[in-house]
Formats: sequence, C-alpha cells, structure tokens
Amino acid sequence: MVTTLSVKTGRQGLFEFTSQLDTIVSGSGINNGLCSLLIQHTSASLTIQENADPSAKVDLENWMNRLVQENDPLYTHTLEGEDDMPAHIKAALTSTTLSIPIMNGRLALGTWQGVYCWEHRHHAGHRQIVVHIGS
Amino acid sequence: MVTTLSVKTGRQGLFEFTSQLDTIVSGSGINNGLCSLLIQHTSASLTIQENADPSAKVDLENWMNRLVQENDPLYTHTLEGEDDMPAHIKAALTSTTLSIPIMNGRLALGTWQGVYCWEHRHHAGHRQIVVHIGS
Amino acid sequence: MVTTLSVKTGRQGLFEFTSQLDTIVSGSGINNGLCSLLIQHTSASLTIQENADPSAKVDLENWMNRLVQENDPLYTHTLEGEDDMPAHIKAALTSTTLSIPIMNGRLALGTWQGVYCWEHRHHAGHRQIVVHIGS
Repeated sequence: MVTTLSVKTGRQGLFEFTSQLDTIVSGSGINNGLCSLLIQHTSASLTIQENADPSAKVDLENWMNRLVQENDPLYTHTLEGEDDMPAHIKAALTSTTLSIPIMNGRLALGTWQGVYCWEHRHHAGHRQIVVHIGS
Repeated sequence: MVTTLSVKTGRQGLFEFTSQLDTIVSGSGINNGLCSLLIQHTSASLTIQENADPSAKVDLENWMNRLVQENDPLYTHTLEGEDDMPAHIKAALTSTTLSIPIMNGRLALGTWQGVYCWEHRHHAGHRQIVVHIGS
Repeated sequence: MVTTLSVKTGRQGLFEFTSQLDTIVSGSGINNGLCSLLIQHTSASLTIQENADPSAKVDLENWMNRLVQENDPLYTHTLEGEDDMPAHIKAALTSTTLSIPIMNGRLALGTWQGVYCWEHRHHAGHRQIVVHIGS
C-alpha cells in the first residue's frame, strides 16, 4: 500500500507527525510489516528523535544552524534565497528516507522516539511525505 | 517476519553485530528479500562501515567527538548528563534505520562492510534493534 | 527481486543514476511497492538531492570537503591514501541505504529530486549498488 501525507511546517524546526503515521498504520490492517517513508523535498528532511523533552529538539536545531550557516561565502547556489543552500546541506546530513518495522499492528518505535519532518527553510508551508506499508 | 536483537555496548564506540544479523537472516529462510533495521533509541545509532582495519573505526569516533562536543554552551538540554545532547546530535547525523537487501540467502553487503551499533553515551548497557525481514 | 547496478564515478562528486533506476523499476512490473538501495562501499554513499540547478551539487561537495578535511592530524588510518579516512567519515554522515516508494509504476520522487552516488575518493572507477524491489 502506498499513500501520502502532508505535514504543516511554516518555519524552521522539527515537526512531529507520529500520530498521523500511526493512523495510517492502523488503517492498513498490517500486523507485522514495514513502514517506509520518503520526503519529496530536498530542503526538508526526516528524523527520528526524542519526543519527551522539547529542549532536545531546540538544541538540535540550534546546533545544526551553527554548523550549516547562511550567507557562507562558499555558496554559489544563492538565487533561491539565503536559507536554500543551507537547507540542501542539512537534508544531506540527515535523512530523506526511513524504514520503520511494524510489530503487533503498531510502529515498533522506542518509548521516547517520535517521527519528525525537519523543516530547513524559513517560510515553507507544507511538506509531502510518501508512505509505503508492506508485510 | 519481525524480531528484535540486543547489542551490548557499555561505552562510546562502534559495536559490530553483523554475525547476529546473519544468523537471523539465515534462520528466516528468505533467499531474495530485504532486511530492515530500526534502533529503538535516540542516543545511539546505526551505521555500515569498514570492518577490516580497526583504525578507521577509531578515527571515525574521534572525528565525531571533536565535531559534536560535550559541555557546549549552546546546550539547554543538560539534565540527563553531559553526554546526552551530543548523543542526540550524533544520532541525527548518522542513521536510525537501515535497509539491506538479501541476495542468495545472505545480506548483500560489500566485502569490507560490517553493520554497527554506534553507542554515543559513556555508560549505556544494551541497545535494542528491531529487525524486519521481507521478500 | 534483487539486482545490482554499477555507477561510473572516477572522481569526487555527485553522480546521478535516477534513469538507470527508473529502467529497473519499469522492468520489474511493480505498480505500488518499494525500491531499496544499498551501496556496497564505505568510501562512497547515496543521497537524494536537487537535480535542477548544478550549483547546488557543487556547493554541497565543497561544503562537505571543508567540513571533512584531508591530512587531518587526528587520523591514524592513513595507509590507504589521504582521501580514504575523509571518505569513510563522509559516508557515515550521508547514507549507505535508501528506500524509495514506487507509485503507479514509478519511483515516487519529488519533482526536483534525483538519486545520486556520492563518490568520496579521487580515483575510484565504478561503484556497485544492490537494488531490491518489493510489493
């Protein structure tokens, strides 16, 4: 089964969509299987991270923004805005696809894990994610 | 088929578990298929790396420790220990899920490739990995 | 179905192989499914990136070369050449495996996405990629 979901972002940061994904997995009727994700963009990415303490998320965003800076004189790809090239680099350093096993009808995530869309641009609206569920 | 395996770590570093995985793949009876992995933690990760010369592993660990330092004044997420926030960042920069094709009943890894659990904390004991095998 | 493909590289950089992959997907006859990839090397990697403006690719390569430098005094793994240890680090920071959903008989990539082999060595010739296609 293949379907798509949309995550509202709107600003830089990590946006959790675990519950949207849970709903799709439940609806599939698959008991033991695999849920694979592709984000259809190169200036946003996917990550599985701690969803307990929001401070971890904030530090992750700030650390990445310090590593991959805007207005770096190295960049030649500047026509699409000062946040565009850093966004491509951050996407390359994180994940564009993920594969999460399904066990007993649920995503087999750890206790503190959530699935996130990591928005790397300042003003993007929605991001499309393709979801494949197989047995 | 979905199962779990546990990797003993205990200290920071790369811990190979290719042979544990080989045993699961052999036992599955799948000849051509896909073996997908999820580590159920956000302060340890997965990587496929060279398993021939141990010096590559050591350099990889040291390089990553220099890039993502403890006690960085940027961190606000500090209650769980000085190695916790760096661990989340390292997990985001490497992989939480992997998908390895199975060919002729074996993981289709390259000659020098091994599958590793990358422990990012100083004193974690065991890490749980969920394994899905499909055809 | 499991098969392999070979990407000619020869120098550092991003080498697109989306059309080779499209041909394999079309030939499989799978309408809705999953295409999973493993690169059988630890000094080259996989990434999904923008394939519209070549300047994004160039900046990505240059940024990564600045982050992960040759002849770093930290390295002890130096016998295989000055580009070898940086290549392993770059592989760990990007992806060794990818999973791309297939929708209506085609890879469900976004409009601007291409699939690339990222060669991290100066003189490697060809890189082998294992492709699994399932339903």
